[in-house]
Amino acid sequence: MNETGRPQELPMSNPRADRVRDVAKLAGRPARLKRGRFLAEGPQAVREALVLHRERTAAGESGVVHEVFASESCLDRLPELAELADGVALRLANDDVLAAMADTVNPQGIVAVCSFVDVSLESVLDAGPRLIAVMCQVRDPGNAGTVLRAADAAGADAVVLTASSVDIYNPKAVRSTAGSLFHLPVVLGADIGELVAGCKERGIGILAADGYGTLNLDKLQDENAARRLGASAASSAYALEAPTAWLFGNEAQGLSDSELALADHRVAVPVYGSAESLNLGTAATVCLYASARSQQAS
Amino acid sequence: MNETGRPQELPMSNPRADRVRDVAKLAGRPARLKRGRFLAEGPQAVREALVLHRERTAAGESGVVHEVFASESCLDRLPELAELADGVALRLANDDVLAAMADTVNPQGIVAVCSFVDVSLESVLDAGPRLIAVMCQVRDPGNAGTVLRAADAAGADAVVLTASSVDIYNPKAVRSTAGSLFHLPVVLGADIGELVAGCKERGIGILAADGYGTLNLDKLQDENAARRLGASAASSAYALEAPTAWLFGNEAQGLSDSELALADHRVAVPVYGSAESLNLGTAATVCLYASARSQQAS
Repeated sequence: MNETGRPQELPMSNPRADRVRDVAKLAGRPARLKRGRFLAEGPQAVREALVLHRERTAAGESGVVHEVFASESCLDRLPELAELADGVALRLANDDVLAAMADTVNPQGIVAVCSFVDVSLESVLDAGPRLIAVMCQVRDPGNAGTVLRAADAAGADAVVLTASSVDIYNPKAVRSTAGSLFHLPVVLGADIGELVAGCKERGIGILAADGYGTLNLDKLQDENAARRLGASAASSAYALEAPTAWLFGNEAQGLSDSELALADHRVAVPVYGSAESLNLGTAATVCLYASARSQQAS
Repeated sequence: MNETGRPQELPMSNPRADRVRDVAKLAGRPARLKRGRFLAEGPQAVREALVLHRERTAAGESGVVHEVFASESCLDRLPELAELADGVALRLANDDVLAAMADTVNPQGIVAVCSFVDVSLESVLDAGPRLIAVMCQVRDPGNAGTVLRAADAAGADAVVLTASSVDIYNPKAVRSTAGSLFHLPVVLGADIGELVAGCKERGIGILAADGYGTLNLDKLQDENAARRLGASAASSAYALEAPTAWLFGNEAQGLSDSELALADHRVAVPVYGSAESLNLGTAATVCLYASARSQQAS
């Protein structure tokens, strides 16, 4: 290592080397499950992974980033990445090697092998969350990543994926999170019954996002605004500023009857135009932002 | 035709026939531009195309759907599609032919060759719009389709794509709109200067969605709520209930300096968590819904 933390060995240059293939295999679920590792691609994802790695190791917890592979030109362009990687194995590699490792055609010069970052349901619930996004049997990696990123933007305290949801460590899902996977606690393979029971014990309300819902999200927002502004003493079916777990369903079928039955209320996002429905990412965004606004302002 | 409007000839069965290749070529922009036609795939898109076709032909305008190709099993499952297609050329085809025509592996048994549906900027502005979504140099077909669908859900009066944006007739873009492409007027290749000048003449405010914006969308929403509830006479930098065109930028770079300079205000969507930014679809959804709520309630 020189003073910028940059390795001085020659860059890896053989895209067919076993070591390269081993990394590339992380695009597949079997290799990920066997090794408990996944791949973060591109400067943004790798930066967020390294930041979380620092936080966790500084707190005496186990690290997140196992190994970083980067091109010289990437490190020239983004020297802070080499600094952030201090204490992490950092290897130089040429673009062919990086392309062979990555799922994207162009990983922008850097990939990181990371350990799974998900946490237990109990740890999330015990931390006193105010806003949780729950994906129930969501199947599309891009959708799952988009909802996770929206949950991060809305300041959610955690994201939960129930059993038989898509693997959030799928490269496309990781990419869609744009680094948010490393920002907030994520629970995988959760049992929806346990989740709901745990929320109820702790006074966290359960709202199901449902196009056929009987409560209207606009109305809940208006009631919240009226309370804040002291303009009305109207009673509300649900106070949006209360700690809330939102259930979002599968992109094709929505929430199942048994999932809907677990919710305290079914809430519809209003559709003002002719769209038959909202896509999952759009609906989740509107719901989570409605809660976040109400909670922030209250 | 029999009484259900279903053709009685034998289904097309040769996926390599010239006629099939001609349809498949619509996946490419050159063939689309040359013929002024594009492909709608799957029951939802085809249904919405046929509904628009009926509306337009009933109004004495030129039609939208040129030809529909469907499998017998699809028409058995969804007989209303054959009824809707009354007066349109409807051909039976087997699944191999449909797969060869379509961009998706599985077009769910039905595709339609449609005429371009976009309209002129002038016609949109002259209709007295209250809410317009403008995509400036958006490049990803999935993003463009998602924003169009969100605009439809928010009840926007039109969607405008500026010059050098992605082709909305790209099969992936059409798919992402989930039929919304046929729900509201879409303007393509618009000159941003003309658009802005036209809006200003008609008293339509121009808001730029911009992470570095000086106005905060939450604040504008709170001020709107306060006005509605008579809780405050605070003056507002911008009244969200006013007729508004929102400018949304390219997914990687956001709005350019010259695009930003055209806006009356730059408005930031608040990020409550650690996300660096919102993705385009998420940001557009939050902005358009904020306007829609304010306009509906006012």
